[in-house]
Amino acid sequence: MALVIQKFGGTSVANIDRIKHVAGLVAKTRQAGDTVVVVVSAMSGETDRLVKLAHAITEFPDEREMDMLLSTGERVVIALLAMSLRALGFDARSFTGRQVGIITDSTHTKARIERIVADRIQAALDKGIIPVVAGFQGISEHDDVTTLGRGGSDLTAVALAAALKADRCLIHTDVDGVYTADPNLVPSARRLAKVSYEEMLELASLGAKVLQSRSVEFAAKYGIPVVVKSTFVAGSGTLVTKEDRDMEQVVVSGVTGDRNQAKVTFIGVPDRPGIAARIFGPLGQANILVDMIIQNVGQGDLTDLSFTIPRADVHKAVDLSNRIAKDIGARSVEVKDQIAKVSLVGVGMRSHSGVAARMFETLARERINIMMISTSEIKISCVIEEKYLDLAIRALHEAFGSGKG
Amino acid sequence: MALVIQKFGGTSVANIDRIKHVAGLVAKTRQAGDTVVVVVSAMSGETDRLVKLAHAITEFPDEREMDMLLSTGERVVIALLAMSLRALGFDARSFTGRQVGIITDSTHTKARIERIVADRIQAALDKGIIPVVAGFQGISEHDDVTTLGRGGSDLTAVALAAALKADRCLIHTDVDGVYTADPNLVPSARRLAKVSYEEMLELASLGAKVLQSRSVEFAAKYGIPVVVKSTFVAGSGTLVTKEDRDMEQVVVSGVTGDRNQAKVTFIGVPDRPGIAARIFGPLGQANILVDMIIQNVGQGDLTDLSFTIPRADVHKAVDLSNRIAKDIGARSVEVKDQIAKVSLVGVGMRSHSGVAARMFETLARERINIMMISTSEIKISCVIEEKYLDLAIRALHEAFGSGKG
Repeated sequence: MALVIQKFGGTSVANIDRIKHVAGLVAKTRQAGDTVVVVVSAMSGETDRLVKLAHAITEFPDEREMDMLLSTGERVVIALLAMSLRALGFDARSFTGRQVGIITDSTHTKARIERIVADRIQAALDKGIIPVVAGFQGISEHDDVTTLGRGGSDLTAVALAAALKADRCLIHTDVDGVYTADPNLVPSARRLAKVSYEEMLELASLGAKVLQSRSVEFAAKYGIPVVVKSTFVAGSGTLVTKEDRDMEQVVVSGVTGDRNQAKVTFIGVPDRPGIAARIFGPLGQANILVDMIIQNVGQGDLTDLSFTIPRADVHKAVDLSNRIAKDIGARSVEVKDQIAKVSLVGVGMRSHSGVAARMFETLARERINIMMISTSEIKISCVIEEKYLDLAIRALHEAFGSGKG
Repeated sequence: MALVIQKFGGTSVANIDRIKHVAGLVAKTRQAGDTVVVVVSAMSGETDRLVKLAHAITEFPDEREMDMLLSTGERVVIALLAMSLRALGFDARSFTGRQVGIITDSTHTKARIERIVADRIQAALDKGIIPVVAGFQGISEHDDVTTLGRGGSDLTAVALAAALKADRCLIHTDVDGVYTADPNLVPSARRLAKVSYEEMLELASLGAKVLQSRSVEFAAKYGIPVVVKSTFVAGSGTLVTKEDRDMEQVVVSGVTGDRNQAKVTFIGVPDRPGIAARIFGPLGQANILVDMIIQNVGQGDLTDLSFTIPRADVHKAVDLSNRIAKDIGARSVEVKDQIAKVSLVGVGMRSHSGVAARMFETLARERINIMMISTSEIKISCVIEEKYLDLAIRALHEAFGSGKG
């Protein structure tokens, strides 16, 4: 008898029929002899509805109040799903983030889980009850409702799996697993049967929206096997787990693209020690996440310096950069937001050389200019013009025959 | 500087514009130099929407889960109203029933408040914060969300007023006070400037839907002055307070009608001691609230016995009564549900005799037959045919010139 966490996202509980369908899936797990804890998101659309109400009142709603408001979405679903399970004859009971003991810091709208006091859930399990848990929410030390930010329900599921020492954590969603590339873009993309935490982390942070990075980090830290699978179609999904020998045979597990990119270039920067700090210090303080950085080889005593940032921060970054440029005596600031990042991910890169060269060749053959490059042990990313992104993904997927092992 | 509780019902917070209007009313109280605690209901319509969702899942939703579901309605409003007040420059903060320390028993969907641990609200007030409290909800000793049943938000307001030793409790609603009769029915009905707790209790339990009985009992017990007033129209409303000399001058404060009535008659009941217990015991166990009881003078060793019950319980009561009749050897059971109760209420009745006689005369003049009569120190009620109810209310209001002093 295994202990399984089953998490269902917003589209999986979007209406009463789907909630009943989810109850059926949970019932199946129980009938197979396993113990279940269910974690749910709000009905899809509900969070947007609530955010709209708040913005009809004020442009900048207080974050503590936003958490109070948004946390109601999951509460509606836990009650309805518990009722559904009871209607099927199971002793199910709903629990809020607070009731399951998810203690967070006080960073409202993106709180971090500090610890989980799972006594009440454990007691419920011991009595044969199916706990239905509100994802995305917790309680601060000040006894205020907090929410965990984007993808927070995944995090609740994985964190509960760790706290309860669950055997596995099933993330039920509207796709049937993690793919070698976006199947809408690359028809030959294949579902990965297995992927390592590290690969999944790179895939998540590179824009594959299946699992949120923090959840993957948490799963990796506590060694929780996570399965991403569809709510609507039967199938074994993708297992996210510890790296093993098999995985290393595959050089490239996935090809991903990310359009959420903009490039800022400081031109004619005095090439002196300490200049980088004077540029990136203020950007960091303004919470602008700088990704890649390139400094050209200096000609004389001036140099150019480029970096990428999330596209949403362009306006904030340009204003700030112009002030910095004046301050450090740089000639000008240029911004380019029609760029994208294409990446190869795979633990096999560790043991297979020549991946980078083959990537550059492939892009060159398609006459795609590479503006910036960054690499890690299991990832290579190139910044290119946005209009070539789809072409680049298809060409690279073809070249590396991703996932064919 | 007084401490004032301001409670706003569902129609008062039905949409964003009204929530902003309510924020304006609270701001006015603060600007007048008073300290405020706000209590709110869910947006009107929201509770019905949630109940419908539950019933789409199961005919008999679990009551603990209903409380989890329904309690979200008020939480949405406290967040939005707190945002609204902050937008006006006030330091407002939302609090759930649990966060204000409303401890109830575990009778889900109609829990009773056991005590209020108001430390957190008091601390907020001490810091100059405006607490915005979710009405209608509390927390049980088992740490489960509970709701207080119909009119529960009024009860939250009055109970908080008692716990915080507030100077007064304002119940803002969609009518501008308590009237001598239903103004829709009796155009000459007048708003009462003042009414005693006891009168208000009788009026509430007799079907005047302005304030729920339990709230009035609570206010009376702790001596909280309650003002019922309109959210939408300026005015002084009606003060519900301790009985005083002025009030006794008015013989009849109000005339009310209640259509929620049905009459059950046991015919040919053996006239033996203990029979009443064998009838009303089982009815009480089935939670059927028996109101008036009349036993006819026996002829020989058989008698007839009639009683009134809420109309909604007719089916349950008939089934049960037939079984009881068989059991005790009564001849038959008759049910009449086209009946109504008309009542006069006034503390002045204590010191003015002849009120009952004048009531019977007035009804007789209109050729309205009286089926049952019940009296208390400050109330006389007559059961009549439902079709005469409006006529009876108008005639009695005219005869007693209610509220004219």
